[in-house]
Amino acid sequence: DYSKLEKIIIGVCGGDGIGPVITHEAERVLRYLLADEVKAGRIEFREIDGLTIENRVACNKAIPDDVLAALKECHVILKGPTTTPRAGDPWPNIESANVAMRKELDLFANVRPVKIPDEGIDWTFFRENTEGSYTLGSCGVHVDDELAFDFTVTTTEGTERIARLAYDYAKRNGKNRVSIVTKANVVKTTDGKFLKLCQKIGAEYPEITTDDWYIDIMTAKLIDPKRRRDFQVIVLPNLYGDIITDEAAEMQGGVGTAGSANLGKRYAMFEAIHGSAPRMMQEGRGCYADPCSMLRAAVMLLSHIDRQAEADKLERALDICMYEEKKLVITGRDTGATCEQFGDYVMSTIEAMG
Amino acid sequence: DYSKLEKIIIGVCGGDGIGPVITHEAERVLRYLLADEVKAGRIEFREIDGLTIENRVACNKAIPDDVLAALKECHVILKGPTTTPRAGDPWPNIESANVAMRKELDLFANVRPVKIPDEGIDWTFFRENTEGSYTLGSCGVHVDDELAFDFTVTTTEGTERIARLAYDYAKRNGKNRVSIVTKANVVKTTDGKFLKLCQKIGAEYPEITTDDWYIDIMTAKLIDPKRRRDFQVIVLPNLYGDIITDEAAEMQGGVGTAGSANLGKRYAMFEAIHGSAPRMMQEGRGCYADPCSMLRAAVMLLSHIDRQAEADKLERALDICMYEEKKLVITGRDTGATCEQFGDYVMSTIEAMG
Ligand SMILES: CC(C)[C@H](C(=O)O)[C@@H](O)C(=O)O
Ligand SMILES: CC(C)[C@H](C(=O)O)[C@@H](O)C(=O)O
Repeated sequence: DYSKLEKIIIGVCGGDGIGPVITHEAERVLRYLLADEVKAGRIEFREIDGLTIENRVACNKAIPDDVLAALKECHVILKGPTTTPRAGDPWPNIESANVAMRKELDLFANVRPVKIPDEGIDWTFFRENTEGSYTLGSCGVHVDDELAFDFTVTTTEGTERIARLAYDYAKRNGKNRVSIVTKANVVKTTDGKFLKLCQKIGAEYPEITTDDWYIDIMTAKLIDPKRRRDFQVIVLPNLYGDIITDEAAEMQGGVGTAGSANLGKRYAMFEAIHGSAPRMMQEGRGCYADPCSMLRAAVMLLSHIDRQAEADKLERALDICMYEEKKLVITGRDTGATCEQFGDYVMSTIEAMG
Repeated sequence: DYSKLEKIIIGVCGGDGIGPVITHEAERVLRYLLADEVKAGRIEFREIDGLTIENRVACNKAIPDDVLAALKECHVILKGPTTTPRAGDPWPNIESANVAMRKELDLFANVRPVKIPDEGIDWTFFRENTEGSYTLGSCGVHVDDELAFDFTVTTTEGTERIARLAYDYAKRNGKNRVSIVTKANVVKTTDGKFLKLCQKIGAEYPEITTDDWYIDIMTAKLIDPKRRRDFQVIVLPNLYGDIITDEAAEMQGGVGTAGSANLGKRYAMFEAIHGSAPRMMQEGRGCYADPCSMLRAAVMLLSHIDRQAEADKLERALDICMYEEKKLVITGRDTGATCEQFGDYVMSTIEAMG
């Protein structure tokens, strides 16, 4: 309960590529919205440098020790995209900083909202965030030259807590349907367990209808104009959540428009759902990076620390600005706004909203 | 080489639910197209009964022994959708007949074309068909009440043969790009191996550009109007192929419009990509089942046995009929055609085409 805290510390981690650019902009807007509380010392922004690919490579760790220690001193974290090493990259094969942070801070729920008001779409995805194919993603085995294995994990606790969060959210927000998505017809043991446990939790919420889908057909239903409006709250294992939220975000206007909340018992981290776009930086177009995803993440952060009025304001301002931008682009007047100009525009819109 | 065979045996397996209805229709159209060769004894259609969920339950096998023996006497197989047992179903948890048949007949490649001519989309997915999360899908372990495991497998041979098939297809068909799709940033060992081996095979085809994508962002790119036309040939592990081809088929008009070829060294099986729709049967609407997916599978079958002229004819007729149907539906004149009427319509269209 954040209202009982004397001071809330918001850690700000820029990340790689366009990460620092868009994170800085989100922080600027947050500071603007929270100016009084910052002044009064009730909220502190704390810059956490050093979560860069160069540093991670230098110490051969997904998260350098000092960064992790600094993160753990914050209540909530605003994090820019980080570069994940790829096969063939010049650096060693260290784990993704995202994946590591989710594990280290036990951020078991990845909550990703997608809204398309014009089409009556209002989805909230509850992606399990520490298990599935991610738990042991770096522990696969090359048995010999021919044969390689990887592992997928489902635990009872891990499944029950994400299911409960999804159903509680549904109940609190007057949603009457929760959809469970797995591939339990093939990945029988772990996905079977996930499905069964979610159904068990669901049975405790008689006012909510539960249905379940296989991930393959779900990616089709999501773009089926006759069916997609029916979905409300979707709960699913890590990998399927990763896959389908990119598809959903694209429908909303691109992965650049979607923010996400990574929630645990103790910590919470808010980020874009997209990557660090190193190419944009290399080509000198970094200042044109679109901060919308981070600003959406900032909305979720505000709501999470019980600053609901500020969250609502920012959300409304974003809706207006994104709508205006879209209109300009459609009418051929490409906005070409820089990241900073967009941030200014958002703040002046909030100002104008009063 | 099918032109050297004295007689080609086409096994026909109806399956469950609407399976027998739509398979029968596809067989009827095939018989019509191949009438002379059937008469001359160069082609034989052989009905293989017994691949029903009731039989499979009775003998507690994914494929009854006599059915498997009969399948192995055919050169190619036309197969209707089969019902896969679900958690909570009244029958024991036997493996999917699809999955079992792919393994038993070593059908290592699942080739799924998706075309949207109006948008310049012409994709061919090469889904690895026997490995990944499917190899040991029934071999997961419940370690205790808390913890469950599943396994994912990649082999060198399994990857190289699907990669080679994809690149050979690209080369033969004048495609200049092959896209490899994995989640190698997380599922590092098996997907990493898959990616590396595909790139190695790709290096043998200097005229073809190789790119690679993670499955999450790929589901977004596929519906991005600015990017989706760029994809041509896509090669990917079993589970990602399963997931993304349903999304792609939905864009084409629904999973009911897509056929698929399951290819091995010795056998080949052609099927719809969708399920058996038991609810349609229960509600007495089975006769209205749409046979398009099976007819698309029939096109692939004809092409596979080197009856390219017949394949082209059927494909053109289907394009015309589906276009006509779509027009009728759009203008509010719902066709309401039965499966049989649609079959008749296709045959009379072929007749009219001369
Ligand atoms: C970068 C990558 C490891 C990460 C994931 O797979 O979770 C990303 O795609 C995401 O969705 O946050
Ligand atoms: C029925 C199911 C086991 C199957 C699969 O997952 O392969 C189906 O979805 C398919 O794509 O053919």
